[in-house]
Amino acid sequence: MTSGIGSADPEPESVLGFRNPRIQRLRRLVSRREERRETELVVVEGATLIREALSAGWVCAEEFVTEGATPMTRVETRWVAEGVLERVASTESPRPNVALFKVPESRGLTGVATALVVDRMADPGNLGTVIRSAEAAGFDAVVVTPGSVDHLSPKVVRASAGARFYVPILEVDLQELRDNGFHLVGTSSHRGDGHLDVDWSEPGRLGIVVGNEAQGIDDDAPVDGWVSIRHAGRAESLNAAMAATIVCFAASRGRGLL
Amino acid sequence: MTSGIGSADPEPESVLGFRNPRIQRLRRLVSRREERRETELVVVEGATLIREALSAGWVCAEEFVTEGATPMTRVETRWVAEGVLERVASTESPRPNVALFKVPESRGLTGVATALVVDRMADPGNLGTVIRSAEAAGFDAVVVTPGSVDHLSPKVVRASAGARFYVPILEVDLQELRDNGFHLVGTSSHRGDGHLDVDWSEPGRLGIVVGNEAQGIDDDAPVDGWVSIRHAGRAESLNAAMAATIVCFAASRGRGLL
Repeated sequence: MTSGIGSADPEPESVLGFRNPRIQRLRRLVSRREERRETELVVVEGATLIREALSAGWVCAEEFVTEGATPMTRVETRWVAEGVLERVASTESPRPNVALFKVPESRGLTGVATALVVDRMADPGNLGTVIRSAEAAGFDAVVVTPGSVDHLSPKVVRASAGARFYVPILEVDLQELRDNGFHLVGTSSHRGDGHLDVDWSEPGRLGIVVGNEAQGIDDDAPVDGWVSIRHAGRAESLNAAMAATIVCFAASRGRGLL
Repeated sequence: MTSGIGSADPEPESVLGFRNPRIQRLRRLVSRREERRETELVVVEGATLIREALSAGWVCAEEFVTEGATPMTRVETRWVAEGVLERVASTESPRPNVALFKVPESRGLTGVATALVVDRMADPGNLGTVIRSAEAAGFDAVVVTPGSVDHLSPKVVRASAGARFYVPILEVDLQELRDNGFHLVGTSSHRGDGHLDVDWSEPGRLGIVVGNEAQGIDDDAPVDGWVSIRHAGRAESLNAAMAATIVCFAASRGRGLL
């Protein structure tokens, strides 16, 4: 008789180490935008986020589980040696479950009446939180313009607290949105009516534009109007996520979505 | 003649090293609540926050500046050797200026008509962001109940983006607020009217209560009513800062503050 090959014990190569090609691909998916584009896969870290992705109907392609932990999905488990996922993770407190999910096929602007438009935002944490604001307000989509941080980054997914899975994200520039009938309202700290004075109930496609953290929206950007947030604090008191929350909720309320 | 003592050259002991007692006190002020309570000093890290504190009229007691950087305040500069402040700072990207500011004397509940009440919140980042929400909405004060994270922590100051300097923070428990005539409205994910259905224009003192991140507000907490945030996303879609932003802005609007 030969030795234990074929027995119930896992074969040595069935527990992946850091140099395994699958782990190296996972590492590239965490850090490299190009790899995410080519494969159309997004890295989802931790049981909570994996559960959200499944609840939202996303399809898991592959799950990595550190030995001793419990798989979260029904796809075949890739067991990983202790300490490997923490060398790969995008977070400082790595989780024993990391899954790859397929990015759902985009239906483009079809069916989108309300969009939060993120113009060249640079920080993944900020993009994640404004996605969360848009989803909470019931917006149909988030649009990111060319030059924005990658919305498939695991940091964006994490900062969105799973909202990323519930709202489609499209890459379209401002002019193309207007060409598709969107009325674009740029948020500004100083221009336009206050958010409580805008008639949000106007019918038709609406895009609320939030700009880059440092530069805001270009003065000559192709928007149809401006809105500033009426608030009682200092000029600098609102960040992008707070501004997006307030304007999206005001618009949703005006349009009868809340 | 004796050597260069008294000359224009700085004496060796005028550039502080890590073991200097002033640096050791600074380190304790960063990390220890008790030290902050005893001294009534708060650590403010970085030029931007120091400028905010000065703009808000806070009084600087002491400023530490890494050799080669520019002092921000008019108090006597404590020059610090390269690399020392980064061993002391609360942040991973330390700044060359760190100042100690005196906590302004509290006027208690005098003059406070609107308060955001933070009940046993645990995370300094969350406390900082809800302080920011309250300040932006024009609330008169933030109240923290016993058992909350220390509002003098440098992490709270930083997460508030300077809003901490513009809004007084009081430590009072819920019952004492009611005894002082506050109508307390607890925020909840499931109880009470929607935030758009509450008549916020009722006169009198108002306290909006946000709870602990994990447990929320106790069922038997002494509140006068509950409010839930009407939103269109998933049940879990709002975090504490978003919820505080939305309810505070709704209340401010109802009371004619915006």
